[in-house]
Amino acid sequence: MIKPALPKGTRDFAPEAVRKRRYLFQTIQQCFEAFGFEPIETPAMENLSTLLGKYGEEGDKLIFRILNNGDILPLAQRARDSRELANLLAEKALRYDLTIPFARFVVMNQHQLVFPFRRYQIQPVWRADRPQKGRYREFYQCDADIVGSRSLFNEVELIGLYQEVFSRLQLRVRIRINHRKWLLALAETCGNAAWLTPITTAIDKIDKVGVEQVESELREKGFPTEAITLIRGYLELPNTPAEAFPAVLQLLRHHPAATDAVQDVEFILKHLSQNEPERATVQIDFTLARGLDYYTGTILEVNSEEVAMGSLGGGGRYDNLTGLFGLPDVPGVGISFGVDRIFDVMESLHRFPATTHRSTQMLWLRIDDMLMPQILEYVRQFRNQGISTEVYPDAAKIDKQLKYADRKGIPFAILLGSREYAAQVIGLKDLRHGTQEQVPLSQVMQVIRQKLQEPER
Amino acid sequence: MIKPALPKGTRDFAPEAVRKRRYLFQTIQQCFEAFGFEPIETPAMENLSTLLGKYGEEGDKLIFRILNNGDILPLAQRARDSRELANLLAEKALRYDLTIPFARFVVMNQHQLVFPFRRYQIQPVWRADRPQKGRYREFYQCDADIVGSRSLFNEVELIGLYQEVFSRLQLRVRIRINHRKWLLALAETCGNAAWLTPITTAIDKIDKVGVEQVESELREKGFPTEAITLIRGYLELPNTPAEAFPAVLQLLRHHPAATDAVQDVEFILKHLSQNEPERATVQIDFTLARGLDYYTGTILEVNSEEVAMGSLGGGGRYDNLTGLFGLPDVPGVGISFGVDRIFDVMESLHRFPATTHRSTQMLWLRIDDMLMPQILEYVRQFRNQGISTEVYPDAAKIDKQLKYADRKGIPFAILLGSREYAAQVIGLKDLRHGTQEQVPLSQVMQVIRQKLQEPER
Repeated sequence: MIKPALPKGTRDFAPEAVRKRRYLFQTIQQCFEAFGFEPIETPAMENLSTLLGKYGEEGDKLIFRILNNGDILPLAQRARDSRELANLLAEKALRYDLTIPFARFVVMNQHQLVFPFRRYQIQPVWRADRPQKGRYREFYQCDADIVGSRSLFNEVELIGLYQEVFSRLQLRVRIRINHRKWLLALAETCGNAAWLTPITTAIDKIDKVGVEQVESELREKGFPTEAITLIRGYLELPNTPAEAFPAVLQLLRHHPAATDAVQDVEFILKHLSQNEPERATVQIDFTLARGLDYYTGTILEVNSEEVAMGSLGGGGRYDNLTGLFGLPDVPGVGISFGVDRIFDVMESLHRFPATTHRSTQMLWLRIDDMLMPQILEYVRQFRNQGISTEVYPDAAKIDKQLKYADRKGIPFAILLGSREYAAQVIGLKDLRHGTQEQVPLSQVMQVIRQKLQEPER
Repeated sequence: MIKPALPKGTRDFAPEAVRKRRYLFQTIQQCFEAFGFEPIETPAMENLSTLLGKYGEEGDKLIFRILNNGDILPLAQRARDSRELANLLAEKALRYDLTIPFARFVVMNQHQLVFPFRRYQIQPVWRADRPQKGRYREFYQCDADIVGSRSLFNEVELIGLYQEVFSRLQLRVRIRINHRKWLLALAETCGNAAWLTPITTAIDKIDKVGVEQVESELREKGFPTEAITLIRGYLELPNTPAEAFPAVLQLLRHHPAATDAVQDVEFILKHLSQNEPERATVQIDFTLARGLDYYTGTILEVNSEEVAMGSLGGGGRYDNLTGLFGLPDVPGVGISFGVDRIFDVMESLHRFPATTHRSTQMLWLRIDDMLMPQILEYVRQFRNQGISTEVYPDAAKIDKQLKYADRKGIPFAILLGSREYAAQVIGLKDLRHGTQEQVPLSQVMQVIRQKLQEPER
């Protein structure tokens, strides 16, 4: 006998969790659709060659490979090390993110797609990360991208999308914006464009380790003192637009890339809606780096204003994502929602609406089998009216049937025995309040509807 | 450069396909919810030990195994054959169906669940089958089960659920019903209860190969002539209840199991709704076998009345599914929807509603950047009213912008230039009819709503 268990880092979702997650996905999806984004889906399995080399050396190690079926022993005997063996035995792997499969999709469907192409995608991804609190090996990503356009109005749209989603979810967030060209100008002003990656990598950790650690990492990597002083100056720049723009231009000695970035961010901030004070604030943050190499323009990150937690989303502009698959010059910009973290924030703040708790609304008790044909007809009518309805299937004591309703949180139990049927009434038990009344059969639908609309006490 | 490709037997879904599939899932899901079924989700990966041995020897070979991460070479060197190697190198595998993970879920959550537990689950599964037309390596299953109750009202409910779903999808189907106890009585009357499996396996192919082939398979397996004559008699039994019940009892010499089955099927047919002639007919079919070993009572299968295709769904009663994981005596009954086949039937009969074609409803043209702040405000208002709206992001010629709308099937393009703004009107282009009119800004919402409700010509 096998004692059943789940693989490390994976989760089952019970009904209430599924309903809450669905509420989250649907809210995001409705916003995506309102903004004219279209859904695509890609398979869970990709060719290993599609994924390898796209996520850095660390990423490659975290890809879940799928063992080839069939005669694998001869291949295994040729391998000289575990890495070679893994590549010999697996030609497919599980999706690691949604961005690379999306780039592959765009390249394979380039002649059918209408550009600028606005797509969204809500699907799980898999990573062989060490599981820990809030980090799973299977989790959903939720991405919106616009590809085939360099217009900054796309950034404006995507920030508006963030604002709309978090406003509908009733979560207070702060959106931070930065520009890769400021970081590039910083690297060049430090003396070397090739320093962009080590500088970005170091700054990327600032939220976790603080500015001192960032500096010592750079020192260890051999950065000269003047460069480190400049980087420190950069990290301490003010963040209100009025101060930030002149200060960054002065620090970076009016480097052309820095000037470009100022124009971009100025344009974006100018076009954001100013009319609704409850919308999330957008704030320049020069310390925002975002690790991914492919970003080339604006970068974004969203944080909760209410709960201390990692980012709830992020994104940015990239110039050449599809170039990896042979289609150059397709610029794009995209954002992602961290749905597992958003879920945790909603849960800790009790922001899920009461409707996500509710399943069945009405249970018909099984008391007189002679009446079951009639009961089944009533049940069909309620269901057709959109009221989720069950009949208790077993011939059990009424107490047991009522306990079932109670444990499932079903608000109403209906009793139709021969006496009630003769009088053309039903017994209606309101399990929330412990009350019972008789209702004429002809009015049951109306009474139930009314009661369902009353706020739950 | 890698030429991008998909793994064999997998598919991308473009926006229109996603919307159609979503329509299908949502219709089924709404019915599930109306019937009081609750959603669960399980991870894509299961421990290999959870899956192995549950799907027969053939099934085991079709399970996609996930290669362990880390140092696999030493393990590989111990293996004597490919099968042993596969088991050494993989401790996880992809879900092969939803039934076994569900059984595992019930056992692991037995103390939290309220029984009878009505669950549904709509998730993909993976099988290393040889891909062919209509058969994929990644496909969705869509299951509803009621566990923890022996009541035949559950069968009545599940047949009602089939009828409701196919009626909402506007597909004409036939539901066939049979009972494993007739097959058991047949095996015992033939002389040996152990013959149940070979008889079931042979009969299961009858739709594909015909009755002659079934007989010769049984002959090859060494069945005696009298048994084969009896089986032929069974396969030729009449199928109207009035004739079927006496005939099967006579043929199987009033075997107690046959009598049980008659009572069950009689009860179920009696309680099905007779009031709606458009609901799918339910028909006794003694030739229905369903391959899976775990069925012990009624079995069901659904076929299209309009298109020749394999079954669109199937299910049945099982007595001891969770026994595999150490929890005996949990009876259940479940059905499954073959969503990929249902999709193909809907597509070939053009039954998807027109709304599944529609994405963005309104495109605001970019013509005068001075007005963009105002336009972005209007766009927000339309989106908040639930009208999917885009602004063309690039400064392109009007023709190119209109062509974009046309190719995407966007019905309305809105033109707001400085002249229009001064007069507080917009130019409204109806791209479906090629007409254009001026509409006062204050009435745009109302006019658009009206036009969207007109049937498309």
